[in-house]
Amino acid sequence: MTDPEQLDAADPLAKYRDRFVGADTPLAYFDGNSLGRPLKNTAHRLADFVHQEWGSRLIRGWDEQWFDLPIQLGDRLGRVLLGAAPGQVAVGDSTTVLLYKLMRAAAAARPGRTEIVLDRDNFPTDRYVAQGVADELGLTLRWIAVDPDGGVTVEQVAEVVGPQTAFVTLSHVAYRSAWIADAAEITRIAHDAGALLLLDLCHSVGAMPVELDAWGVDLAVGCSYKYLNGGPGSPAFLYVAERHLASMAQPIQGWMGAADPFLMGPTYEPAPTIRRFLSGTPPVVGMLAVEDMLELVEEAGIDAVRAKSVALTEYAIELSDEILKPLGVTIGSPRDPGLRGGHVTLVHPKAKALTASLWMRDVIPDFREPDGVRVGLSPLSTSFQEVRRGMYAIRDELERVG
Amino acid sequence: MTDPEQLDAADPLAKYRDRFVGADTPLAYFDGNSLGRPLKNTAHRLADFVHQEWGSRLIRGWDEQWFDLPIQLGDRLGRVLLGAAPGQVAVGDSTTVLLYKLMRAAAAARPGRTEIVLDRDNFPTDRYVAQGVADELGLTLRWIAVDPDGGVTVEQVAEVVGPQTAFVTLSHVAYRSAWIADAAEITRIAHDAGALLLLDLCHSVGAMPVELDAWGVDLAVGCSYKYLNGGPGSPAFLYVAERHLASMAQPIQGWMGAADPFLMGPTYEPAPTIRRFLSGTPPVVGMLAVEDMLELVEEAGIDAVRAKSVALTEYAIELSDEILKPLGVTIGSPRDPGLRGGHVTLVHPKAKALTASLWMRDVIPDFREPDGVRVGLSPLSTSFQEVRRGMYAIRDELERVG
Repeated sequence: MTDPEQLDAADPLAKYRDRFVGADTPLAYFDGNSLGRPLKNTAHRLADFVHQEWGSRLIRGWDEQWFDLPIQLGDRLGRVLLGAAPGQVAVGDSTTVLLYKLMRAAAAARPGRTEIVLDRDNFPTDRYVAQGVADELGLTLRWIAVDPDGGVTVEQVAEVVGPQTAFVTLSHVAYRSAWIADAAEITRIAHDAGALLLLDLCHSVGAMPVELDAWGVDLAVGCSYKYLNGGPGSPAFLYVAERHLASMAQPIQGWMGAADPFLMGPTYEPAPTIRRFLSGTPPVVGMLAVEDMLELVEEAGIDAVRAKSVALTEYAIELSDEILKPLGVTIGSPRDPGLRGGHVTLVHPKAKALTASLWMRDVIPDFREPDGVRVGLSPLSTSFQEVRRGMYAIRDELERVG
Repeated sequence: MTDPEQLDAADPLAKYRDRFVGADTPLAYFDGNSLGRPLKNTAHRLADFVHQEWGSRLIRGWDEQWFDLPIQLGDRLGRVLLGAAPGQVAVGDSTTVLLYKLMRAAAAARPGRTEIVLDRDNFPTDRYVAQGVADELGLTLRWIAVDPDGGVTVEQVAEVVGPQTAFVTLSHVAYRSAWIADAAEITRIAHDAGALLLLDLCHSVGAMPVELDAWGVDLAVGCSYKYLNGGPGSPAFLYVAERHLASMAQPIQGWMGAADPFLMGPTYEPAPTIRRFLSGTPPVVGMLAVEDMLELVEEAGIDAVRAKSVALTEYAIELSDEILKPLGVTIGSPRDPGLRGGHVTLVHPKAKALTASLWMRDVIPDFREPDGVRVGLSPLSTSFQEVRRGMYAIRDELERVG
């Protein structure tokens, strides 16, 4: 059996773990893909922000830095994590609100087309927004057939995309199985049918490289409180490919999306840039922790982060095969690491009770309906010894409740 | 001339000023109605949050407190500031996004009606959202005739409201003139015509009592970074009168508005409560400073806050009449304090250059097109001596640039 101490000793990113709050506690945290641990620096950063930028500069902060922050931070996300040239990414609102804006924009950009293509295993909020947009515009939801333990394949998409498809929307990494969709090929399939692709990056951004420009993706959203450690409810981001910026419009017309917000003019004229996808006042405080984390990921390098992510999930699967399989646990994620994102879902009929009892002993995975224990391993804050500790606790609890 | 030291000595709320960051500096801050000063406690609160609630409880924080926070904080806002019984207020998103949700909900609740009634002096984002909603639904904007130095009167509303009006939307306190609209009477006029009323509380909440239930208001929004000192881009709140909760729907269907968010079911079923107006993950970090400020306002009492607010603006007008009127300044706000909110707009043709030069010497009002210098006096963080210092600086700069 692989020795987790050796793995930690050989891990070139091990040193980063100490920068996170609580990394020195016995907690086994398997939910960094739902809410990432904070960086220690973020506590200082927020307190300092209250005294300096907010408390001392006050309203002047808008002119001095905050007004451009949604775009500046967007550009930096684009460069460090998204493979997106400047001017295509903006930060603000929640993932849900941004999905709404982009689904409306995508539907309007393909007038006369009557279908939204998506899969039933996509994250609930994506499906709910699509359902709402379809209802209000009189469109139909066209479902991709998908194996819940796997994910959306190119072939499955090709089967349902057609001349009636306005846009295809899917998660880059599936929130249950961790299946990585082939975004480049699926984009090509969508484009061949004249449709657009809207990609949800919530479960991939920060844990693996993303290449939106190279893949030809039209639209994307992602959240910042999972692998980007922005804190509960920190703002989301959106990407709109440059070729669509001049022609696409979103329905929530607010002053921060106007060509000249402080003119406060009589009618709304959208900004000619990505700013037109903003609506209200940007959530500045919520962006600070994201800046801290981006700095860290940039220092570590996203390829190294992905390499550790793969090593962590490989190790979790190895342990599961050794100590959990005899207790009835199967793997609900791809075994091929090239098809698997940053988490592993363990399948067991008593998953719900098991998760509850694990929480009582400071082992924190997530339960996902109907029978999944999701082991999310945020690469920069998780050690191999933490994985081992948590997986053995799962064995102990399974022996108790099993 | 009134002695500001005597006014400060006699001010029963003077002691609260020391609780704010920067209150001991020579800055004259006349923009607390755009971005309130932070409480000193907020710096500790945020750092503590990073280490404790976020850093130690991690994902468990959602079960333990954050999931209900948008409604709990909403109920508290309702009780302390809005005159709203529990279950009608929720916190989240930006004011702009909430205006969009409520305008869409209001239009859908009055099918067949073709007009949105509003005034050209309403805050830009309100007008822009209304324009967008009108465009997408095929409605017409019907304008209330309004004097920009005054505000929306009951008579003016009565002139344009009719059987085609779906809803009337206006600001409780006008962002330029500080005019207080008679929300109760205007609601009655709207209801007499079978229309709904949507009130924007951004420039009143936290500076004066609001009685949404008693006034019969249907829908309201407000922001938390002005008099509620939540920090740049802190989340907004909305109010939906209980009688509308079961029947009204908003278009941005997200998991946090679902009847059972963690069921993650196949179709969206809206929660039966105010929660149905939420969409994405609540911005928890942005709510913390608002909690701090609510505690302070509750301790001081909103009636005492309003009394000080009136005294501050009365004093600013007195000073303007004495030292600025001779330099060509007029008052662009109601002189009757019963018709005036928490700020005073000084009108001068060189307002823009004047504001810029004041900023250079740490006197911070806001410029408002076309010729307004807005003196916003956040009651709990502003002293009478600060008012005097700033008003004399305005005189000095006017003498230089005038």
